[in-house]
This record gives sequence, structure tokens and C-alpha cells, in this order.
Amino acid sequence: MRLSHYFIPTLKENPKEAEIVSHRYMLRAGMIRQMSAGIYTWLPLGYKVLRKIEKIVREEQNRMGAIEMLMPTIQSADLWKKSGRYDNYGKEMLRLHDRHEREMLYGPTNEEMITDIFRDGLISYRDLPRNLYHIQWKFRDELRPRFGVMRGREFFMKDGYSFDLSKQAARHSYNKIFVSYLRTFERMGLKAIPMAADTGPIGGDMSHEFVILAKTGESQIYCHRHLVESACLPENIDYEEDLEPIVSQWTKHYAATDEKHDQARFNSEVDSENQIIERGIEVGHIFYFGTKYTEALGCHVRDAQGSKVALHSGSYGIGVSRLVAAVIESSHDERGIIWPDILSPFEVVIINLKVKDSATSQKAEQVYEQLKNADIDVLYDDTSESAGVKFANMDLIGITWQVIISPKSLASNQLEIKHRAQEERIFVPIDTIVDFMKKNIKR
Amino acid sequence: MRLSHYFIPTLKENPKEAEIVSHRYMLRAGMIRQMSAGIYTWLPLGYKVLRKIEKIVREEQNRMGAIEMLMPTIQSADLWKKSGRYDNYGKEMLRLHDRHEREMLYGPTNEEMITDIFRDGLISYRDLPRNLYHIQWKFRDELRPRFGVMRGREFFMKDGYSFDLSKQAARHSYNKIFVSYLRTFERMGLKAIPMAADTGPIGGDMSHEFVILAKTGESQIYCHRHLVESACLPENIDYEEDLEPIVSQWTKHYAATDEKHDQARFNSEVDSENQIIERGIEVGHIFYFGTKYTEALGCHVRDAQGSKVALHSGSYGIGVSRLVAAVIESSHDERGIIWPDILSPFEVVIINLKVKDSATSQKAEQVYEQLKNADIDVLYDDTSESAGVKFANMDLIGITWQVIISPKSLASNQLEIKHRAQEERIFVPIDTIVDFMKKNIKR
Repeated sequence: MRLSHYFIPTLKENPKEAEIVSHRYMLRAGMIRQMSAGIYTWLPLGYKVLRKIEKIVREEQNRMGAIEMLMPTIQSADLWKKSGRYDNYGKEMLRLHDRHEREMLYGPTNEEMITDIFRDGLISYRDLPRNLYHIQWKFRDELRPRFGVMRGREFFMKDGYSFDLSKQAARHSYNKIFVSYLRTFERMGLKAIPMAADTGPIGGDMSHEFVILAKTGESQIYCHRHLVESACLPENIDYEEDLEPIVSQWTKHYAATDEKHDQARFNSEVDSENQIIERGIEVGHIFYFGTKYTEALGCHVRDAQGSKVALHSGSYGIGVSRLVAAVIESSHDERGIIWPDILSPFEVVIINLKVKDSATSQKAEQVYEQLKNADIDVLYDDTSESAGVKFANMDLIGITWQVIISPKSLASNQLEIKHRAQEERIFVPIDTIVDFMKKNIKR
Repeated sequence: MRLSHYFIPTLKENPKEAEIVSHRYMLRAGMIRQMSAGIYTWLPLGYKVLRKIEKIVREEQNRMGAIEMLMPTIQSADLWKKSGRYDNYGKEMLRLHDRHEREMLYGPTNEEMITDIFRDGLISYRDLPRNLYHIQWKFRDELRPRFGVMRGREFFMKDGYSFDLSKQAARHSYNKIFVSYLRTFERMGLKAIPMAADTGPIGGDMSHEFVILAKTGESQIYCHRHLVESACLPENIDYEEDLEPIVSQWTKHYAATDEKHDQARFNSEVDSENQIIERGIEVGHIFYFGTKYTEALGCHVRDAQGSKVALHSGSYGIGVSRLVAAVIESSHDERGIIWPDILSPFEVVIINLKVKDSATSQKAEQVYEQLKNADIDVLYDDTSESAGVKFANMDLIGITWQVIISPKSLASNQLEIKHRAQEERIFVPIDTIVDFMKKNIKR
């Protein structure tokens, strides 16, 4: 993509409404634009990152055996009256009436709807377990939306729902999600710590939040150092095996957000040099709520003995749009965003420092074509801005690999290359650029 | 994917609310489920097809040079008051109030919003032309939603918007879209005919609908036989070249829906044996409306001479969710759906006719693993249904390639293979199945 043909409306000034760094950088880098309080347009650059996060979430859901589908954004109030949540949900629910004055709402979550769908599609206990998910826009009418897409009103969420015949089987479904979430966040370069959590309006008796550490986090978190420094997950997890050993490794140490924090327990379980007290951002939340919704909506099945039983369910959310901001909070410097390689909106940017010099531009075009032909996603800065402006913009935007082309490096038949996360620049012979990128780009 | 682990809630009976074949088959094949009037869940099988259509639309938009982004579903009423459409739009617009009693709406289209965004991002006339698009859920509160996703209320649309400095330049942008739409529909196996159209609530002075022929179509169409039988587009179109020759080939013959039909002109321009009078389904609609929205929203730029000019715009829609139904209307038989190969929800289904026979199941598992390892998207019917039920279901669902495994064919070390669109079955040696599929699957 040529920058001269693209649309990245960067801002020179820090927008004063932006209180946290991700919001500031997303606005300044031309990734998002606010349309109404808590409602954003994803400009081309931001949209590319959103899609990359969505793709990782989807891949890990599918790997774990969940099945993708898509429920609508607008729901009938009827289902919510059956579960009793229509009145309880309060003003965060965006309620509306259609032209026939039917009560509708913009879905903040989908427990009722999926239970209704699954009940009608289920034939036998042999169809269990199932885990169904969708990645869809949700709306929660926050009183004071703020921090950009971190706490927006219209937001993009992966929400999944499991159905099992027994509590024990449901526990395995919960564990599968638990482990797949650790993998999902790890792939994005995030260290997410599972913490025992309150269940809030979803309900149920077991719940974990997945929280990443960030100074600007919304909540205080307290945990054992081991969880922050512990090793990564094994590469190839067999989700059909018993996952309790992995889950218990992550749950046996103290970890709590301020809602659930118990200072006395913290002190008794964790010696002071291992106590981590930090700010954190919630990026996922999982719930086991047993038969709460299946009983309310009549989602039963006959088991092998012929007894009618209500299914055991859980729900599992990842904030896909919020993750874009969370990644920035955890990876940036004073010049701008430092994308984990896998999330970089383009894999490479070619910075032509002397567009008006025909030899330089000819070479830049050639490198651009070569990289494109090698299926590398490349942005070519062919604008006539000054070198200073170009470097500042590209450091702000944070594309992983910068290829800098100037008459000076061309004189020695070389290209200057910089990885956004590193200070030093290296030089490679022009005709090896495709090989270099193929070797170094992480996908 | 093993069918025993998947979720395809097929229906045995014809749902009585379904008046047209696509609606009937989509419900029966477990592709969609109605949640409220005109609001559907896309069950796993339907969702896969929806995504395939979305992918083709996206690829052709990108190929033509359009830039993807994403605008939110909920819009502020303010923008619509500026354009004057808030009052004019009528009851089809789903209006709502947020918790602070601000007037909002669920976007039925995005001319105002994109003009607002582009105005703020535009720096110079050198930034023109631009074509920005998104693929997002829309809501139109139809008085009587019907025909399933063909005329739903919540629907998935690609809408794109072009910005140019002059009417002449805008004409080229219009032509690019025109040609890219022909390509888009052709890739889905559809013959779409562009027809001069009314501009309705969008406004403007040039517009074409893209209509496919189908007996169940919503509108009567009248056109010259040449348009129905004319050749395909050239393979590699250079969108920067003059496209008038291609566009005029498609617009020089008479073609109109009943709204615009003029019988006297039809008779004088088309001799009777070349008159086609049929039913049609609109799958795309494009508009050039000049400065209508840019003037209302102050989207100006200084041209090379320093004069302030309002930009020339057009908008361009493809009904992505509607296309799923339109494809079925144009490709089915009395047993079910016949997907164009490229849209088949799975590329191959393995039908195991004797699950309880361990030799047969062992071979079926082996073929399943081989095809999966070759990156072929395969469904394995490992259920214990009868052969008759399995064949009926798979013909209904319409997966392109059926691989039938039974003790009988295994005895001769062969697999029975059927293409959904053809009656005859062929036999291939078991160990050549991967090669056969690699050679025959169209992507």
C-alpha cells in the first residue's frame, strides 16, 4: 500500500480528552476516531490491528474445539424477561422499540439467546458437550465511557458458551477455555494472569478474570510473583486430556483484584518479597453458572438413564476491541506504539527519504514491488514529507520493520533496517531484502 | 470437523413461514434461525458461507483500490439532521435514546458519517481520489420483513464511499466500482445485470442496480438478451485505465426494473425475440450523488488553483447477507442447495455409510486425516444415521464434494465420489483421494 493512496489521518497534538497512553496514541496514529461518547470508527490502520487480534482469538477458539456462529446485535426483550435479567440489568442495557413498539435491546451479552438456540437444536445427550462462540459487536451504555476503546459503549467481543451434561463435564469445558485464553493472550505478547473474580450480573459460582499488568489499569491487583514470572504454556496442548494440572498451576497462588482482595490472606499466603501489587487491565472473563439459564429457558435433555436434566453452562468473554488498547498500554515508548510483531498493522514500512531523487525512488519502488510479490504486507511511505516527520510518524504508528531508503545507503548498495523495538539500525545488501524479511517476520 | 462434534440443527419439515426456496433451505439445512421478525442468527454452517461471500467482496474491493475500515452500528442523530435525512428517513430508521436521552439510531447506511470522517482527515486535493468501505451490520426496520435473510431487518452490507475533486474524476471512481461489482458477482457464479435505477432516499443523478435473474425475485426486470448471454469480463483488469469501454458495453443495451421500465422504449430498442422479461433480485446498488452530502457537511478542499470546492461523492452497496440467499435462489434443485464450489461451506464431506463396521470407520478416519493434513476443509459424517438420511441431509446442505465410504467400495480399494451438481458418481483409488481433491477443488 502506498501511503500517498492510503488514509492515516494522524494528529500532531495530543488530544486533550485522552487520559491514557493507548487512547492518546490511537487517536494520534489515526487508528480510531470518536463518533459519539464511547463509540468509535476504526480507521484503516486501527481496523487492521483489530482484525489481527480477532484472527488470533478465532484460531485459538477453533483449536480448542469451539464452533463459530454469529448471533444478531438486536435482541428481543422476551428472552431476557424469561431469565429475569431484563429488569435487573439496569441502565447499561440499551433498550429500544421497533416500529411496531416491540421491546428490543442491543445485546450486551448472549446467555439467553444461545441457550434458546441450543435448546432447539439439541437432540440427545450424545450431542454434548458443545462450545459455541461468536465475535460480534455489543453495546453497554456506560454512565461515563472513557479511555477510548478501553471502556467504550459499542465494543467488539468474543463470547462463547459451553453446554455439558454434568458439573464435572462442565469443569473440563471451563478448563479448556481457561488454558486456551492463556494461549490466546500469550500469542499477542501479553502476560495475562487469571484471578478469582466476582460473577456480577452474569451469575454463577466460579469465575476468573484474565488481567494484564499495566500502570494505567483500571483495577488494583494483588498476586504472587510466581504468576508474573512463571513459564509459558507447553506448545502443543491436547485439549482432550485432563487440564487440571495446568489450571491448578495457575490458580494455586494468590491472585485477586481489589474487589476480591483479602489482605490478611495475602499476607499469610505470600511472603512480602513475593507480593506483587500493581495496576491491571481485564482482557477476559470466564464464568461457570451451572443451570441458571438452562433452567430458566427450559434447556433440558434426557441422560443415558432417561432422566431429564438441565444442562450445565458457562460463558467466556474476550474483549477484542479493548485488547487493541491493552496491547498498547503494555508495549509503547515515548515516541509511540511498539506492536508485538504479530500485530503490526503492516509487516514492513519502506521509508523513502528522498522522493524527489529519481534514483532513490526507483530503488524504493523496486523494493516495494519485491516485498509485495513475496506476500509481505508492506506500506510504502512515498510522500514528500521531511525525514523528521516521516520518522516521527512511523515511530508513532509502530510498524515492526522500517526499511529506510536514502541516497546515502544506496551509494553502498545497502538498505538501512530498523526494528521498532530496538534502537540500533542495521544495513543489509539491497538484493537480500526479501530473504531478510522472510527470515525475520513473525506471523 | 466431525459432524458428531458439530452443530447443524437440520429440520425435517418445511417451515411454513418460508415462502421462497432459499428461506426454506436455509432453515432446513440449519444455516440460520430466526430470533425476531427479520433478525437471524447465523448458525455455524450459514456463518461459513456468509464469511466466504464477505471474503470475495473484500478481495475485489481491495483489488480495485478501496480501503477497508469500520464504522460503528450506532450513530448520533446530529449528523443526519445536518443532511436533512433524519426527518425524511421515516420509520425504516431504527431510532433510539441512550441513557442520557441523546437521540441515536442504528445506521441504515453511512453517507453522513463517512463524509464527516473524511472531511476531518483530508489535508489536500492531492489526497484525492479515495474510496473507503466497510462491511458492517445495518438495520432497516422494514414494515413486513420476509423471505428470510433476503429482506431482513438486521443485515450485513458492504458499503463504500468515493471522494473526488471533480465530476469527471468521480465518474472514473464510479466506473471502477461498476466493473469490480461485475467481477465480484461473477466469482460467486452469479450473472448480475446492471440496470439504470432510481436513487431513492440516497439521492443523486446516476445510479445502477445489479440484479440477478431468479424466478422468486422481488421485481420484474426487462432487458436485452445480450446482457444475459454476454461474455465474462477480461481476467486482469487494470483499474487505472479508462473503463468507459467496459461500462458502456454493459449500459448500451436496454435494462430496467419495473420502477424505471418504459415499454415503448423497450419495444423500440429491443426486437421482440431479444426481449427478456423475468424476475430479478437486487444484490448491489451504486449511486453517484455529486456534492449532496459534502456540501451539507462542509467537506471542501482547495484545488490546485486555490479555489474551495466541495468533493464529488458516490456510495456503493453490496448486500452480503442477502447474497447467501440470492445464490441459493439461483442454484438449487428439488433436493437442496447446490453451492458454487467456491462458496461451499465445507469443501468435502466424507459420508461413512457403516460407522459400526470398524474397517470402514478406520478407513474413513484415515481419509479424514489425510484431507485435513492437506489443508482441505472437510466435514466427516461419523454419525450413526441411515444411508438414506445421510444422503438426504448432504444433498440438502449442498457441500460440493461428497466422498462416500462403504464396505462395498472399500472391497475394491476405492472411494465413491460425487459432485453435488452432477448426477454420476465416480470411483477413485483410495490412495489418490488427496491428489484428486487438490486437482478438483476450486478456491
